[in-house]
Amino acid sequence: MPYINTSNNIPGIRGLMEFRPEVSKALNQLAQVLLVDDASLSRSERELIASFVSSRNECRFCMTTHGAIAANLPGCNDELVQDVWSDYTSADLSDKMKSLLHIADQVRISGLRVTENDIEVARQHGASDLDIHDTVLIAATFCMFNRYVDGLGATTPDDPEFYKKVGEQRTKEGYLTTSFLVK
Amino acid sequence: MPYINTSNNIPGIRGLMEFRPEVSKALNQLAQVLLVDDASLSRSERELIASFVSSRNECRFCMTTHGAIAANLPGCNDELVQDVWSDYTSADLSDKMKSLLHIADQVRISGLRVTENDIEVARQHGASDLDIHDTVLIAATFCMFNRYVDGLGATTPDDPEFYKKVGEQRTKEGYLTTSFLVK
Repeated sequence: MPYINTSNNIPGIRGLMEFRPEVSKALNQLAQVLLVDDASLSRSERELIASFVSSRNECRFCMTTHGAIAANLPGCNDELVQDVWSDYTSADLSDKMKSLLHIADQVRISGLRVTENDIEVARQHGASDLDIHDTVLIAATFCMFNRYVDGLGATTPDDPEFYKKVGEQRTKEGYLTTSFLVK
Repeated sequence: MPYINTSNNIPGIRGLMEFRPEVSKALNQLAQVLLVDDASLSRSERELIASFVSSRNECRFCMTTHGAIAANLPGCNDELVQDVWSDYTSADLSDKMKSLLHIADQVRISGLRVTENDIEVARQHGASDLDIHDTVLIAATFCMFNRYVDGLGATTPDDPEFYKKVGEQRTKEGYLTTSFLVK
């Protein structure tokens, strides 16, 4: 149960959003642009960054949800998600993705932690300005979503089936649909 | 100069947003709903929370900009902003605002830091569910904005006159206008 009375039993972030529909549109639009719409990073790469940052922030709802979405997308699977959670430096990822996950982790700790050298290493591995921009903003955005979810004590289901279903729904529909999976 | 080539000389977050206009709309809409549109907390209270979180995150661009906006609004002034930056617990604020700033600081560190007791104390001082929701989401949102600005090394002007002008513009126009102050 969340810390506030949301007057609904929708788990996770969408239960909070239902309480304040005015903010819901902007938050979902942001997720859609960053994670679904065309970009230079693939959808699975972007969902992996989101799930990785959430895992380091220990936000179980977001890490599991976005891990499930990433695993459904081309170029990813459950094993790779698990490897990124436990130690991305030894995961089966390109050097470019590893350098971007390093930047994401620095952003997660503090924006001030990112160095010119971190950016230079990513560039040497082929990262474009757009890749770097999106990595930083996805990491920053999940620092927001993680704090929104856990700061209000959003309901975080234990049942793995829940995340499998949400993962399938979001992979297919993106973030703009308003149908909810109710616990 | 930001770490990426934004092809513009607009300082701060709006220089980054110009590079990626697709995300700009959602980010500005979020700021507008949380900080300007009608809510149970006043505009100056919400801008104070934004500036406070940014000061603790040492994001000079956001803390100074939102401090300038707060100081322009009814119920606030430059001295109160300075007091909130240095020690909000002894600032001239209601017990309700102090309990909400405490929650905002916990969210800033980690969403998992917020306790049932923090929420209960805020309620005892008159905070509503909407006050608590908005405090948590404003704090979380500025954890995003601060990381976006500093993680990409956005241009942060030294001239106090810049922040005075941005403060006047945003106080009057809100966050949806697209005219920029160029350094």
